Amino acid sequence: MTKPQHPALAAFVTALAGRNMTRAAYVAVALGMSATVLLTMDPAYEAGRRWIIALLWGCLVFFVVEWAVRVQQAARAYRAAAYLMSGRGLLDTLSVLAVPVALASGMEVRTAWLLAVIWVLKVIPGVPGLRQLRRVLVVEARPLLSVLVLFLLVLLLGSVAEYALEHDEQPATFGTIPSALWWAVATLTTTGYGDVVPITPLGRVVAATVMISGLGVFGLWTGILPTAFAAETRRDNFLKTWESVSRVPFFASLGPSTIADVAQMLRTIDLPPRATVIRKGEPGGCMYFIASGEVEVDLPGKKVRLGEGAFFGEMALLGNNLRSADISTTGLSKLLVLDLVDFRVLMARHPDLAQSIDAEAKRRTMENRT
Amino acid sequence: MTKPQHPALAAFVTALAGRNMTRAAYVAVALGMSATVLLTMDPAYEAGRRWIIALLWGCLVFFVVEWAVRVQQAARAYRAAAYLMSGRGLLDTLSVLAVPVALASGMEVRTAWLLAVIWVLKVIPGVPGLRQLRRVLVVEARPLLSVLVLFLLVLLLGSVAEYALEHDEQPATFGTIPSALWWAVATLTTTGYGDVVPITPLGRVVAATVMISGLGVFGLWTGILPTAFAAETRRDNFLKTWESVSRVPFFASLGPSTIADVAQMLRTIDLPPRATVIRKGEPGGCMYFIASGEVEVDLPGKKVRLGEGAFFGEMALLGNNLRSADISTTGLSKLLVLDLVDFRVLMARHPDLAQSIDAEAKRRTMENRT
Amino acid sequence: MTKPQHPALAAFVTALAGRNMTRAAYVAVALGMSATVLLTMDPAYEAGRRWIIALLWGCLVFFVVEWAVRVQQAARAYRAAAYLMSGRGLLDTLSVLAVPVALASGMEVRTAWLLAVIWVLKVIPGVPGLRQLRRVLVVEARPLLSVLVLFLLVLLLGSVAEYALEHDEQPATFGTIPSALWWAVATLTTTGYGDVVPITPLGRVVAATVMISGLGVFGLWTGILPTAFAAETRRDNFLKTWESVSRVPFFASLGPSTIADVAQMLRTIDLPPRATVIRKGEPGGCMYFIASGEVEVDLPGKKVRLGEGAFFGEMALLGNNLRSADISTTGLSKLLVLDLVDFRVLMARHPDLAQSIDAEAKRRTMENRT
Amino acid sequence: MTKPQHPALAAFVTALAGRNMTRAAYVAVALGMSATVLLTMDPAYEAGRRWIIALLWGCLVFFVVEWAVRVQQAARAYRAAAYLMSGRGLLDTLSVLAVPVALASGMEVRTAWLLAVIWVLKVIPGVPGLRQLRRVLVVEARPLLSVLVLFLLVLLLGSVAEYALEHDEQPATFGTIPSALWWAVATLTTTGYGDVVPITPLGRVVAATVMISGLGVFGLWTGILPTAFAAETRRDNFLKTWESVSRVPFFASLGPSTIADVAQMLRTIDLPPRATVIRKGEPGGCMYFIASGEVEVDLPGKKVRLGEGAFFGEMALLGNNLRSADISTTGLSKLLVLDLVDFRVLMARHPDLAQSIDAEAKRRTMENRT
Repeated sequence: MTKPQHPALAAFVTALAGRNMTRAAYVAVALGMSATVLLTMDPAYEAGRRWIIALLWGCLVFFVVEWAVRVQQAARAYRAAAYLMSGRGLLDTLSVLAVPVALASGMEVRTAWLLAVIWVLKVIPGVPGLRQLRRVLVVEARPLLSVLVLFLLVLLLGSVAEYALEHDEQPATFGTIPSALWWAVATLTTTGYGDVVPITPLGRVVAATVMISGLGVFGLWTGILPTAFAAETRRDNFLKTWESVSRVPFFASLGPSTIADVAQMLRTIDLPPRATVIRKGEPGGCMYFIASGEVEVDLPGKKVRLGEGAFFGEMALLGNNLRSADISTTGLSKLLVLDLVDFRVLMARHPDLAQSIDAEAKRRTMENRT
Repeated sequence: MTKPQHPALAAFVTALAGRNMTRAAYVAVALGMSATVLLTMDPAYEAGRRWIIALLWGCLVFFVVEWAVRVQQAARAYRAAAYLMSGRGLLDTLSVLAVPVALASGMEVRTAWLLAVIWVLKVIPGVPGLRQLRRVLVVEARPLLSVLVLFLLVLLLGSVAEYALEHDEQPATFGTIPSALWWAVATLTTTGYGDVVPITPLGRVVAATVMISGLGVFGLWTGILPTAFAAETRRDNFLKTWESVSRVPFFASLGPSTIADVAQMLRTIDLPPRATVIRKGEPGGCMYFIASGEVEVDLPGKKVRLGEGAFFGEMALLGNNLRSADISTTGLSKLLVLDLVDFRVLMARHPDLAQSIDAEAKRRTMENRT
Repeated sequence: MTKPQHPALAAFVTALAGRNMTRAAYVAVALGMSATVLLTMDPAYEAGRRWIIALLWGCLVFFVVEWAVRVQQAARAYRAAAYLMSGRGLLDTLSVLAVPVALASGMEVRTAWLLAVIWVLKVIPGVPGLRQLRRVLVVEARPLLSVLVLFLLVLLLGSVAEYALEHDEQPATFGTIPSALWWAVATLTTTGYGDVVPITPLGRVVAATVMISGLGVFGLWTGILPTAFAAETRRDNFLKTWESVSRVPFFASLGPSTIADVAQMLRTIDLPPRATVIRKGEPGGCMYFIASGEVEVDLPGKKVRLGEGAFFGEMALLGNNLRSADISTTGLSKLLVLDLVDFRVLMARHPDLAQSIDAEAKRRTMENRT
Repeated sequence: MTKPQHPALAAFVTALAGRNMTRAAYVAVALGMSATVLLTMDPAYEAGRRWIIALLWGCLVFFVVEWAVRVQQAARAYRAAAYLMSGRGLLDTLSVLAVPVALASGMEVRTAWLLAVIWVLKVIPGVPGLRQLRRVLVVEARPLLSVLVLFLLVLLLGSVAEYALEHDEQPATFGTIPSALWWAVATLTTTGYGDVVPITPLGRVVAATVMISGLGVFGLWTGILPTAFAAETRRDNFLKTWESVSRVPFFASLGPSTIADVAQMLRTIDLPPRATVIRKGEPGGCMYFIASGEVEVDLPGKKVRLGEGAFFGEMALLGNNLRSADISTTGLSKLLVLDLVDFRVLMARHPDLAQSIDAEAKRRTMENRT
């Protein structure tokens, strides 16, 4: 766990460990997975054995470098051990070691490289919504576990009952409880391969009960989640808007209680440069506040730019419902969206806000006419 | 991109491009699809080859005319290029070109006409709720994508595991990873064809895990959507009621804050002429405000008409819960519905509203008696 | 359409048409269905041909009488035509006519009696929650229809694609588009019989897309419903509690706005005689108000009865959380349930209510001690 | 039903009946289930017949002792009869009697021991979330039953229709209505074994209708549950937080109405000793109140302990969003979690609360600096 010795190396490490490396890792994962798939297809393997193996070694080398860079980077913050012990660190280490160890222990080449499939787990930290999913599962762990227990109870009782009813008739398929469990899991999940099917009348009654229980249990599972998702969505949204709201001068005049309300009404959207936000002539259902970035209003004969803290799109909400100009971003921008419903509620509760928006809208209409 | 030269042509174009053309297009799509289906059924094709091909050419000609009309129409608004580049324009062009190009390039007649199936996509813009679905998918894109990633991870890991476990036993079905992926997708979606089934004990344990993961992942997918649908429904409803509320004088006396509240409580319904809104003697759970159109109250001995801005149905909510007269529309009408729950809440919050409704109800009862 | 001539007949008709006839109809439906099933099972039919046919004729005669009684009854209210034209009247008529007409037209006996299966539709009006389901479907008709359209589009596009890709390889199963549609519907609903399965690589890719679309479309379908169900449940609950709340003197002191709030917090439960409402020693999570009926409190050494308008169960909410006595109903009772959460919220908002409940609880504790 | 005679026995009974016995029972259930499974696998049975049977007898003896202990314990509270009549008592008695009675009545040994599968039901009372599931099912019983009725109607109508359409073509599989019902239940639940498949065109159209109805009915089922789950989750959460809130002095200054609000915003979490609550440098999205137990704050150079009633984690919410110290529990602790959204709303509504939290945060910052 030594501090990097050379500044040049440190700079290289920093550059590698940034956004570019993450992208390169995705490419390496995709290439590695494709190569693994080709490895199992005999014609492809015969034809391009060398290239496939070379590609896999290339990916492996990349992951070794990535691992080394991450360890170095962590070591700079005196946290190499913490990284190596973290879930991500363990995965990185495993990705690097699995195939070489398998090859070294004498495993057949094509079988050993199958272990490269664990590289695919490296995409997990980059999936934005997975943290939200995990929180939902944690918050609802108790009822979800109960559903799982119900599922397992039905599984066990169903398979023992079918074993008792069918094993004399069909010793090949219902001859043991594990065989019956295989039938039960395919039935309870409504997969229904049809390789194992009860044929006695009573066995079919039990099977029908298992199928209907399968739907019931699954219905419970899906019924539990929406509430938690609603709470998480509200929470995520608030965390994103809260920071931005304070940057919009328009809301500064509001008391803290109203700001908390407003933050729950708003939604943030991130837009790339030159994205069209509003198209002239379309019906308008929301207005926008600029949290960061800049937009360009395409008025007849001139272009007006609006920067951080400005708002636009309010005229369609106040007037005839149609957008009066094209508006697009000039650079990477974060906008706060206020839907018509919430706009009306907000204006109704705060007549002073309503007046200042009205005044601005009138000023703009005047300006455009002249 | 020329402006249409002749006023007569312009009028014809306008007429064609309206509601009638949309209906004709639906008929053409339905006929075209039926003909395409018949094309593949040998007995039908033998019997009516000429008619089927003629019908398909007829539909194609219709779509060519439709395309020309739309381009003309767009050109009049100097927007022909925008139309041709829009999703709809591309689809229209593709619908027109696909079959002729296929025929011209020497494809077999019956195969070429199969491309007519893309005509069916022309019904999409006419489906009223699709915009709402799309908004829901956009708002929840992030968690939905996470679920998709989870799905793909389970798919890949499951199929590699099954390949490793089963390819020696069943080289025909689990011989390559793509074959195993075919099994995995049929299993994870709980389709379960049963053409490829693991037979080793460990392979079945992996398969059971994949099936249960399938249910879990799908439960997450369905759990994400309700919140967004709730928000969209509220939004859609508000957009529809807000305009109408302002047209009802009864609500004019309310402050803007209350109007915003009321607009969220109301629901709009559009009724054709001579539709029965209220049936005498039925229990009443809501009252109605007329946003546009007219209704006729069938009182004993006389018929009373109520026009835009009037309300009715309040007597059952105030009194004995049973409707006291038949009421039906005289023409196309838009009504605002206020449910009993919200009626009570509204009356409780606004005693003056309660009084004026009460007074009107009493007046009506008196009138009916005399 | 004549008025019944004899008072005795009228009384008989009234008695028949009441609750008893409904129950008898359920029994007749159950018997008729069982007989229909037995009819198709050769051993049972051989053994008890006479009895089965006799039973079916018996049920038919019952339905004829039921039909006559209902017509008579409707005729007394001068509404016979309305009844015959209503959904229920048409079903009743069809139930009576279907089998005789089939027999008369020379159909084979066992086939003709299969038509008796439509009798099962007679149970529909008696299912309490179906009206709620129907309202949900009506309110959400638009997005549900969009989902159905999406479903049909995927169905059509998927089956044409599979036809094109597979009909050369598998002319027996993918030889026509209708055959491919059969595959598509079994796949898109994730039923997956496995009788028709694509075998070309590209066909399998299309099939995988169809399966995943199936899950996606179904997820949309289930995502639409919860919001509407929530609204319907709230509405139904309010309709039930609103009437009852006004009968409880305890709530009379509250203003109308609070009553509307309270009515949304309460839930009604209907209990048969001698049902135990509260069990001594159990943790208490709600209190009860008696909307109608009577309960008996089993105090040590004496039994106290509480009648309409009284409340009980508040002591566990205020004190140590455990029920202090057994309480059961003496007759058919309707109770209003107030959960602990809402109890706290209500008490916090209305200190005067809190005081009077507190005083009553203290009085009761004193009484029990002495 | 005698009172236990010896104090030593009573003490033994008490000890046995506690938490340890519950754990031992889980182990016995697991062992018994494993033995039952092995019993049906010929190689395992041949090899270890004695051990398997001995293990099963061992589990049975344990359950007999457990049963005796529970009866004794209930007898001490003069409630032995109540216990024996309760669901749990009946299950315990059945678990004890089933196998011996089966063996005594001359059933084959391996078949008789299959009855041991009912032991698995003993885990049910220990599953924490099942009460919540049951309450949801009770509250929504009416619409759920309607869905079940719809399901059964489709089942019956579908199978009679298929019988009529297919029994001439496929007498072996659609020869009787019960056979057709077997097809219908596998189709309506989307299981789709594929052992019975309609082959006539009309039969397939009916089958497609049944499949789509299956999705529709199941969608209704899952649509009903989320609302009730949301209400139950809110209720459960309130019951847990309400008690704890009163123990936090910080909330004592709030009026009862606000406390009821706050209790709905909080979530409780139970943590084992030495669990890390907050990790330095992570983004902070909530603050914590200690309802019971103690935490240790790992400040630079010293460790500070916070006990019951204290709060922490507020600094990240007020300041730069990053946690400034590691915090972990010292013993078993119950914490109340307040999410950032609710924190902002609460602070906005109660400026005095905001001030006192602010003051505490400043005091802590000062302290850390010095």
